[in-house]
Amino acid sequence: MGADDNLPWPDDDLPATTVERWRLAARRALPAEVVDYIAGGSGTELTARRSSAAWDDIQLVPRILRDVSAPSLTTDLLGLRLDTPIGVAPTGYHQLVHPSGEVATAGGASAAGALYTASTRSSLPLEDVAAAAGPWWFQVYVLRDRARTEALVQRAASLGASALVLTADMPYLAVRQRDVRNGFVLPATVSSAARSGAEWATGGSHAQDPAVTFVDIEWLAALTGLPVVVKGVLHPGDAATCIEAGAAGVWVSAHGGRQLDGAIAPALALPAVVDAVAGRAPVLVDGGIRSGTDVLRALALGADAAFIGRPVLWAAAHSGAAGVEQLLSTLADELRLAMALCGACTPLQIDRSIIHGTAP
Amino acid sequence: MGADDNLPWPDDDLPATTVERWRLAARRALPAEVVDYIAGGSGTELTARRSSAAWDDIQLVPRILRDVSAPSLTTDLLGLRLDTPIGVAPTGYHQLVHPSGEVATAGGASAAGALYTASTRSSLPLEDVAAAAGPWWFQVYVLRDRARTEALVQRAASLGASALVLTADMPYLAVRQRDVRNGFVLPATVSSAARSGAEWATGGSHAQDPAVTFVDIEWLAALTGLPVVVKGVLHPGDAATCIEAGAAGVWVSAHGGRQLDGAIAPALALPAVVDAVAGRAPVLVDGGIRSGTDVLRALALGADAAFIGRPVLWAAAHSGAAGVEQLLSTLADELRLAMALCGACTPLQIDRSIIHGTAP
Amino acid sequence: MGADDNLPWPDDDLPATTVERWRLAARRALPAEVVDYIAGGSGTELTARRSSAAWDDIQLVPRILRDVSAPSLTTDLLGLRLDTPIGVAPTGYHQLVHPSGEVATAGGASAAGALYTASTRSSLPLEDVAAAAGPWWFQVYVLRDRARTEALVQRAASLGASALVLTADMPYLAVRQRDVRNGFVLPATVSSAARSGAEWATGGSHAQDPAVTFVDIEWLAALTGLPVVVKGVLHPGDAATCIEAGAAGVWVSAHGGRQLDGAIAPALALPAVVDAVAGRAPVLVDGGIRSGTDVLRALALGADAAFIGRPVLWAAAHSGAAGVEQLLSTLADELRLAMALCGACTPLQIDRSIIHGTAP
Amino acid sequence: MGADDNLPWPDDDLPATTVERWRLAARRALPAEVVDYIAGGSGTELTARRSSAAWDDIQLVPRILRDVSAPSLTTDLLGLRLDTPIGVAPTGYHQLVHPSGEVATAGGASAAGALYTASTRSSLPLEDVAAAAGPWWFQVYVLRDRARTEALVQRAASLGASALVLTADMPYLAVRQRDVRNGFVLPATVSSAARSGAEWATGGSHAQDPAVTFVDIEWLAALTGLPVVVKGVLHPGDAATCIEAGAAGVWVSAHGGRQLDGAIAPALALPAVVDAVAGRAPVLVDGGIRSGTDVLRALALGADAAFIGRPVLWAAAHSGAAGVEQLLSTLADELRLAMALCGACTPLQIDRSIIHGTAP
Repeated sequence: MGADDNLPWPDDDLPATTVERWRLAARRALPAEVVDYIAGGSGTELTARRSSAAWDDIQLVPRILRDVSAPSLTTDLLGLRLDTPIGVAPTGYHQLVHPSGEVATAGGASAAGALYTASTRSSLPLEDVAAAAGPWWFQVYVLRDRARTEALVQRAASLGASALVLTADMPYLAVRQRDVRNGFVLPATVSSAARSGAEWATGGSHAQDPAVTFVDIEWLAALTGLPVVVKGVLHPGDAATCIEAGAAGVWVSAHGGRQLDGAIAPALALPAVVDAVAGRAPVLVDGGIRSGTDVLRALALGADAAFIGRPVLWAAAHSGAAGVEQLLSTLADELRLAMALCGACTPLQIDRSIIHGTAP
Repeated sequence: MGADDNLPWPDDDLPATTVERWRLAARRALPAEVVDYIAGGSGTELTARRSSAAWDDIQLVPRILRDVSAPSLTTDLLGLRLDTPIGVAPTGYHQLVHPSGEVATAGGASAAGALYTASTRSSLPLEDVAAAAGPWWFQVYVLRDRARTEALVQRAASLGASALVLTADMPYLAVRQRDVRNGFVLPATVSSAARSGAEWATGGSHAQDPAVTFVDIEWLAALTGLPVVVKGVLHPGDAATCIEAGAAGVWVSAHGGRQLDGAIAPALALPAVVDAVAGRAPVLVDGGIRSGTDVLRALALGADAAFIGRPVLWAAAHSGAAGVEQLLSTLADELRLAMALCGACTPLQIDRSIIHGTAP
Repeated sequence: MGADDNLPWPDDDLPATTVERWRLAARRALPAEVVDYIAGGSGTELTARRSSAAWDDIQLVPRILRDVSAPSLTTDLLGLRLDTPIGVAPTGYHQLVHPSGEVATAGGASAAGALYTASTRSSLPLEDVAAAAGPWWFQVYVLRDRARTEALVQRAASLGASALVLTADMPYLAVRQRDVRNGFVLPATVSSAARSGAEWATGGSHAQDPAVTFVDIEWLAALTGLPVVVKGVLHPGDAATCIEAGAAGVWVSAHGGRQLDGAIAPALALPAVVDAVAGRAPVLVDGGIRSGTDVLRALALGADAAFIGRPVLWAAAHSGAAGVEQLLSTLADELRLAMALCGACTPLQIDRSIIHGTAP
Repeated sequence: MGADDNLPWPDDDLPATTVERWRLAARRALPAEVVDYIAGGSGTELTARRSSAAWDDIQLVPRILRDVSAPSLTTDLLGLRLDTPIGVAPTGYHQLVHPSGEVATAGGASAAGALYTASTRSSLPLEDVAAAAGPWWFQVYVLRDRARTEALVQRAASLGASALVLTADMPYLAVRQRDVRNGFVLPATVSSAARSGAEWATGGSHAQDPAVTFVDIEWLAALTGLPVVVKGVLHPGDAATCIEAGAAGVWVSAHGGRQLDGAIAPALALPAVVDAVAGRAPVLVDGGIRSGTDVLRALALGADAAFIGRPVLWAAAHSGAAGVEQLLSTLADELRLAMALCGACTPLQIDRSIIHGTAP
């Protein structure tokens, strides 16, 4: 019945998650260098590999004999009421995988009732993305040219973004060896169509400013009044400083293993960040989440929502907006089931008691 | 001399346990989709794989120079005197593997002096199963239609079941990707023959009720007066609540890795459950037990009995009741030897001092 | 220059220890079923595999800038002055690997100045073995027929054995699946030639008595006045009880992984046993020792001597007494070097400060 | 643009670091036995393998939102101001890999602004090496013939060495099985050209003295007045003793896994040594460092500089001095980026707060 009915299975005859089957489908649909561009991490991809494995390593201790007859994923997040705590993480240049680009991914998220994070590095004008999206946040860099940053975030605000996501883990761009090996460059059609962000990659005054510090959180927030979520937080000390410097939330992320290779897996960094934030603001997380059960683990460790990056591109590559909607729905179904099997009806009922090795 | 004389050996020239050889025999005897139906777990089968490995990871510290000239496996369990602490866990639809179905498995268990747990999802009428069985328990769900549950357990009680085993880890059925891949559906002949349980799978009012809670333990117990064992307990807090809510025993199980993928291995969950129960009731365990030495580990961690699921189906597939009897006898022999090599003559003499990493 | 000059190298082009090369040589020299008989462990050979790996897992912290210009391996052990702390562990039926059987292995040990432990299950009369040996101990079982045990140990004492080694981990013989698979039985020529021990394997009154307890240590000692070393000790509590019951030493061993599969690796069990014995008697160890560096680890953990089992058979298979001598000399060379690289000139200078993870 | 543009990629289609690509290039450029001579460790190469893996195992916790707009690697070390904390470790006989030998490696280091450690076992006269080098240290053994040692270090001092590096982990030379297997001997052309060190390998009075102790640190220092760094320190107790005995620095090293096989990985030994030295002297480290991120880990654990051995030979094998310069520049680039991604502008700003599992 869904867009996932004809997804491929792995060759090795082993069972595979639905997300993994989307990956296989994308690998067939896309040129090898685009597959590599999406899959690639920096260095030897230690962090990319570990980010997924770290969720698997968390053993769950299910709770039983609770009434789980009416499970609900409804989630309140920075003033938004969402149908699901599973959102779309910002990734760049969606026309690499589908002609409708961000319109497809934003539209699919909207259809699934999921929060969408629009990337500054979009293939399409932000106006088009905003029109396709349901609830959405806007991901930004603080550029060397501050006026340009200001113009960009005001445009996002006027288009209806409900929060800004400040990428804090990219003062410089890391080297991704797959792209070096392939000699991969973004096609001009994909990157130049974006009025909002394509010039960013060209360096100069439009490039990310490596001198950004915590005080810029308030500067950014003051531009539009929108809440600012800091993305790329892995250290608990930094998480606390973000909150004290005015951040409305912190987003635990290792940038999909594409920045510092060797960075800690987000699943491993999450608990200490949650403890440091201590309920003062929501904590979000991305990195290696590949099933609804991984989302459950994230929520159990204290995250308020979990975000998906690469799988959204895989689903869009195979079947555009319908694929993205299907992917997010499947993940929601998996989360609903996993939650019920752990005795919880709502995300708020999930706590660390279901994590092995955590005091109950 | 036994039914295991002509079991196959693995191709790789490595030594294999007798249980593993039964698995290989079943793989030859059964259609691939039935092999997969039995082997399959939910998700990526993390829990299924880890359940076996977790027993292996427990290093034993044998005790020496005790008189072990008269080993005995006699075990008292909820009023039953059993020849062995190794029982048959409930699994569904035994006619999938052998025409005699549950009559073969119950008969084999009886011949081996082992406790048999009859599943609600039986291929054959419960009357036939009961007639073939020695001591037996009856596994039940609390269905949405409570009257139906009541009728079922009263029928089981009148047929001689000595305890009820309430499956608590299946408020909803998890997805098993092998079956999805194979498009596997139970043959009508296998599931419809069962007057007792086949309708269960069809959902509606006859389906398992996801609103069951701890108070239903007493409700269930009151229907027949039989002791109620709660199966699917992994959290020590839940184990304690079960006992306080009237359970006569708790059964540590991850449902063979077929429900929550990522659930903790039973071997890892067992000690905390034993500590929480604190001797107030017997603690049982299943999940990945593949040798008499695994049973020894379970007993050493505090279990009163250990149950075998898939291997019983493998043995039945190869040689029916004789295979099941042979399998259980071999496991008992292995346990007797392992016990003696650890300086114990009886299950009650086994304690945590033989587990590495546990204070003596 | 030595017997090891033409040993084979592994096919995979990786470096190999000399001991590993003896193993490869024996694999070529012996029938496959004898290779399996020697290599085999019980169950799935968990303990056999882990015993070697556990030594590798111990990371050494070398000491530097000590005067190591005059290294010496001289070792005092229960009244013997030995050239090396590396001895030959008891193993059965040496004619399986070489026509000269125990005369070859005892002779090789003698030439290398190493302590030899003669097995009750010898292919050759004990008189011949004793004549070929240098310093030697005699390994015994307490049989159901105590008079027979008495006769045997008195014969050993009169032939010059300087201690008795009581095998305490074999109240019953475990199943070794390789032998089952191969249908392996000892050739009559190999086992019946032994006047001393061959009947043991036939059960009946001549078989090992599973009712032996700690009090039998003094009974055994009183028969000849020879010191009794208890072999097969893995639990610290048992080690202490042995000493208190009159044992002159304890021998940490998992019987080469041939008895309880799943038993703790000797390397892992050793420190707690050493602590429990607390200097009251020597502590010996065997199991998975495959290099002089492994011996160093054993000494650093507190062993007074380390014993080699399978490698002695490999060396004898390839070149008889000369091979055994060469093997033991190589191990001594490796130990001397490893010791010097850890800043020690003698075994007594080695302590736990060179073991990572141990308080200095 | 650089010498690394045409380096090979691995066959398996996975991403590879630049260092790994230099290794592949050298494997093509050199005879197999020279590849093995460089790659080889002692024993089964446990330490060689673990030394690299231990850096990977350290998960980094990046810091964000610091001003990292002006990163600098400038490092002060024993009176030298260096452009980078990445130096060249001493290795022998560079003419094995390139006709220009040490002149190429010293020249490449000089061009990259990196400290060079000249080995006693040089292919070329020290005068030539010194002429090619920028800042350099001289690695020495204390030979049995002390007068010879004295002459050698005075010659080094007169040629401009700014410190002496005393190799303390080689009282005897360990066996490297790859060389045994290959029957590898150093070509006379390579080793005899060196007036300074070639005779060393021939034993006799010119060989390393195994009686050297801590008191010889002061003896060595007094010969020239140059600071003495002790190399091969792994134990914190020895590190403290070195400092107290007059060492100007300690160099954590397992000799590339070529001496005691089984020795702890330097990455694992480093923190305790740093704690024991307690800021009294610089701590240096080598062993398995294969990327700028590994250097970052070393600095975060408290090292003042990190040294590279084998990769320098690989780069020289492929393209001489230009290769070495390119290698060191790439590593510096990687370090600069990794540092910035951890919120640090200078090596001194790096601390253990970015190491997972270390108290912040």
